[in-house]
Amino acid sequence: MAILKDINSPDDLKKLNLKDLNELSFEIREYIKDVIGRNGGHLSSNLGTVELTISVLYTFNPPFDKIIFDVGHQCYTYKILTGRKDEFPKIRRRGGISGYPSPRESVYDTFFVGHASNSISLSLGLASSRDLNNENYKIVDIIGDGALTGGEAWEALNNLGQSKKDILIILNDNGMSISKNVGAFSRYFSKLRAEKFYRESSKKLNEILKKRGKFGEKLLNSINKFKLVIKQAIIPGIIFEELGIMYFGPFDGHNIPLLVDVLNKVKDLNGPRIVHVITKKGKGIDFAEEEPDVYHSSPPFLEPTDKVESFSQTFGDEMVKIGRKDDRVVAITAAMELGTGLKKFKENFPDRFFDVGIAEGHAVSFAGGLAKGGKLPFVAIYSTFLQRAIDQILLDVSLQKVKVNFMVDRAGLVPEDGETHQGIFDLAYFSFPNDFVIMAPKDGDELREMMNFSLKEKRSCIIRYPKDSSENLGLNSPVIPYEPEILKEGEDVLIISLGRLSYYAFKAVEELNEFNIFPTLINLRFANPIPTYTINNCIDKYKFIIIAEEHYYLGGIFTKLSPILMGKENLKIKHLSVTESFPPIGIRDELLKRYKLDKEGVKEVVLNLIGKKVTS
Amino acid sequence: MAILKDINSPDDLKKLNLKDLNELSFEIREYIKDVIGRNGGHLSSNLGTVELTISVLYTFNPPFDKIIFDVGHQCYTYKILTGRKDEFPKIRRRGGISGYPSPRESVYDTFFVGHASNSISLSLGLASSRDLNNENYKIVDIIGDGALTGGEAWEALNNLGQSKKDILIILNDNGMSISKNVGAFSRYFSKLRAEKFYRESSKKLNEILKKRGKFGEKLLNSINKFKLVIKQAIIPGIIFEELGIMYFGPFDGHNIPLLVDVLNKVKDLNGPRIVHVITKKGKGIDFAEEEPDVYHSSPPFLEPTDKVESFSQTFGDEMVKIGRKDDRVVAITAAMELGTGLKKFKENFPDRFFDVGIAEGHAVSFAGGLAKGGKLPFVAIYSTFLQRAIDQILLDVSLQKVKVNFMVDRAGLVPEDGETHQGIFDLAYFSFPNDFVIMAPKDGDELREMMNFSLKEKRSCIIRYPKDSSENLGLNSPVIPYEPEILKEGEDVLIISLGRLSYYAFKAVEELNEFNIFPTLINLRFANPIPTYTINNCIDKYKFIIIAEEHYYLGGIFTKLSPILMGKENLKIKHLSVTESFPPIGIRDELLKRYKLDKEGVKEVVLNLIGKKVTS
Repeated sequence: MAILKDINSPDDLKKLNLKDLNELSFEIREYIKDVIGRNGGHLSSNLGTVELTISVLYTFNPPFDKIIFDVGHQCYTYKILTGRKDEFPKIRRRGGISGYPSPRESVYDTFFVGHASNSISLSLGLASSRDLNNENYKIVDIIGDGALTGGEAWEALNNLGQSKKDILIILNDNGMSISKNVGAFSRYFSKLRAEKFYRESSKKLNEILKKRGKFGEKLLNSINKFKLVIKQAIIPGIIFEELGIMYFGPFDGHNIPLLVDVLNKVKDLNGPRIVHVITKKGKGIDFAEEEPDVYHSSPPFLEPTDKVESFSQTFGDEMVKIGRKDDRVVAITAAMELGTGLKKFKENFPDRFFDVGIAEGHAVSFAGGLAKGGKLPFVAIYSTFLQRAIDQILLDVSLQKVKVNFMVDRAGLVPEDGETHQGIFDLAYFSFPNDFVIMAPKDGDELREMMNFSLKEKRSCIIRYPKDSSENLGLNSPVIPYEPEILKEGEDVLIISLGRLSYYAFKAVEELNEFNIFPTLINLRFANPIPTYTINNCIDKYKFIIIAEEHYYLGGIFTKLSPILMGKENLKIKHLSVTESFPPIGIRDELLKRYKLDKEGVKEVVLNLIGKKVTS
Repeated sequence: MAILKDINSPDDLKKLNLKDLNELSFEIREYIKDVIGRNGGHLSSNLGTVELTISVLYTFNPPFDKIIFDVGHQCYTYKILTGRKDEFPKIRRRGGISGYPSPRESVYDTFFVGHASNSISLSLGLASSRDLNNENYKIVDIIGDGALTGGEAWEALNNLGQSKKDILIILNDNGMSISKNVGAFSRYFSKLRAEKFYRESSKKLNEILKKRGKFGEKLLNSINKFKLVIKQAIIPGIIFEELGIMYFGPFDGHNIPLLVDVLNKVKDLNGPRIVHVITKKGKGIDFAEEEPDVYHSSPPFLEPTDKVESFSQTFGDEMVKIGRKDDRVVAITAAMELGTGLKKFKENFPDRFFDVGIAEGHAVSFAGGLAKGGKLPFVAIYSTFLQRAIDQILLDVSLQKVKVNFMVDRAGLVPEDGETHQGIFDLAYFSFPNDFVIMAPKDGDELREMMNFSLKEKRSCIIRYPKDSSENLGLNSPVIPYEPEILKEGEDVLIISLGRLSYYAFKAVEELNEFNIFPTLINLRFANPIPTYTINNCIDKYKFIIIAEEHYYLGGIFTKLSPILMGKENLKIKHLSVTESFPPIGIRDELLKRYKLDKEGVKEVVLNLIGKKVTS
């Protein structure tokens, strides 16, 4: 950290020469590896953008200029160099800095980001404001090639090309977004990369740069010339130019002198322009370069961690069995082959596996089409990302009266990623259609049960589960359609809980039993149709009811049970849920505790409700 | 109707010669004009697709082959020619046929459609199913150029280009989707159109067609040749070819012999392909050709209709005043300049008006960017279409802590368009962020009040209103932050209603008063923050409460008021709301009546609840 130790702001960076910058990139890479090796995080994408970020900060002047990252998980170097070097070891930890851009923690971060493909829209909005206000800051939008599979980026490019607004887009092309890129855009970029002009144009650019002065007419001349060289070299077709956006590249995204030169030249042009740089995901660390998808979002790798089976793994294993016994079953993911656990299914049934890229809206409509043709799609997407496809869930699945199963991963409180990745609205939006069967398993056994039940059920099945261990409670009873499971029969208080919370509540009840407190615990299983009849039948026995759900306080099981809880005078009801729209960073235990959804929380609420104190 | 009268299925159509087909197009055009002149409906887009639809049905074999329309509002000729000629006069009427494709009414309709840009995704899903099942039907996807501003179409094209699936996309390019097209795609299409090769290639094609036989090797030869001719003519760049999709065109979309020839040749090719046809929106009817946007979705024009001021008009007029007094105000629409009432604002403040095309996700992120830069965006989009932007509302507005106002038009029960256009989920999804101020006005005066209040309020304001008259009740009191308005003080029953329903409920209460029944009527005004304190304070006086909202039964004001309605033993509560996810076709009165939300419904519910009978 010989150089890095003295860098506390981009101003410090600007004092370095190009050779030092190169040295700095090695130091940063090591620093990222060390910290993420302990904390876990987005390793490979950040290793790929070290030189690019250095070059951008060397050339532009944030916070006056606005730097905007798409998706945002590649911002570590940016954070390190914009005054957050010392906080970096607490990245993704409670009270520490976020793994995503966050205006709350620094003026250098323009927007909160976390989902993909929206940065050009944000940039264009900001640019329109800037121009109406007669301001003159620069806007630099750094977007990965994978984000261009997301439709919103094209909606924005369509408007950008027409608007002529002054925005510089840096297209960080690493041939893969999260897992391997899919689709025609990706192939198109490969073609651009593969054209032999690549090395030539870089050389030519260097020659031009050497010959010409830095400012004035000569600058423009040289830029126009090197643009021409590149343009002529690619025939047919630069899509961006067709859309009215100047295109430069591709350039080697790990060559700092080249990048700084290119950015300096492109910087003072006007209008919408794209600089296409080629980077290597995982660059500089062998194992990350070799398996960039494995180290995309990585658990700590420097210290041994407990290997527990997750819900995603349980789902992935069971999918292979289900695929074998039912020909209709196909699987769809949106760039999350590894994260969702679908890798094994893909290996076993390559023809029946579809990775559509970061394109959730399309994924759901596509599933509707598959179902219409007679297939049974299992759509595995994280709860937070399905928020991009709510309209399609309504119109292209429910209204079509086709059966599509949704495997809603990361449903509930999501550790470490913070505000942008919480999965706390899915019970609400999956209830907009009134014909879906919505389930949530407490453990791996129950998940398997529910998946197999979903094959027999005629309606679309939604199964939601958190990013958590799927360790079994070992008490499973078969899934009976639309009926809850009674996990404990007691008398003092009725606890109704859904999904993994039933596991924690069970542990709480066991401990309460030791103090002669005997709650009844109902594992609801079905959030739709909600087992109103069964619940209604047993309510009258209790004076106290606790309803616990790992969901936003509106739109979940409490909302659905409300009508039967009315008209009962001496009933005390406590609703445990996520009371904030954007839960902060924390490990899962901390987040559950925050809303009293963990074992201790449930115990505490029971004791408060019945007015007993326990001294242990 | 000399020819049309004998056409009861596509088989009848196939017996005609090309000259008859031409004659038929005139008859259909007149038929559409007559019926839509009386019923109202999508006039201009349907006039534009008469010849195209005839040609498709002449060439392909639905229902074996699957014809899929994007958006769907251009399907009238298709319905007339696929056995629904006699039902056509009841289009868009209760018990009649839908103005959109509907598998419920005919096997010729493949999917329910109504929103834009999803048809390629549906088609690709269907094609993937077909191929897994070893079936061999053809899939024809008819999509307007305007729908390509919607990102989902590009998500699908990205996958389609890679998949090599056999799908024929007909790009119906009329230079405008709903209002004038916006953006770079549109300009790109103009360029394709304008290239001088257009007439040439058509001529060359004709020559080839004349010289060559219809089947076998020669067919392929000729197709390849004419493809080559066209390809060479367009340099630089056919974007679709870059994405791996064969491109043919553009062709005159009103020339049936040409279209039939082209479709016959392209039909038996394999793989993804696009045929680009140029049509004129409003074709053949003078006034519709001249003002295609005015007659896009038209009220009846053959008979005089009452002119009442709508909420959209009130909003549009007030926006001009607000724009004048507050520099920060900018307006955003997604291809609905006329429908939302923003035309006047655009004329007064062209620099502060943004039509982003059919691209709701982008519209919202773009607004987030504008707000970040210091502007105050008013985003005016229909409730049903905002379902495409829920994730952006959460992450790019609420999480950013910027202020964006949403003017949610067509919120509630939407007349005539049926299942795909109902605006009944917005109270729920706008409550996912917990920091929005959500309001609903009962009349035009209150809408203006709320818009002006929104300028002073620090938080983002959501104002929802239905497609209804904004006729004033004449009782307005100033908007007091987060407090309801008490419209009538009574004693027998408490009615809490929101938005336009308060107008109807007031009329109901007036009539009940005549029978010595005196309900209290509270116009809630605020759905967030919900005025819990005020409501809670007055609940205890009543044994009966009616909560009326023009919204899906979950996620609206009943959901939010539920906690304070619990624990009260002798309280009878009746919740009036929309109990179906997809309300059917009907005029507004019929739909309100269906859910007892109209004046008579409220009266009936009050009488039932308090157990009184009234003989009038």
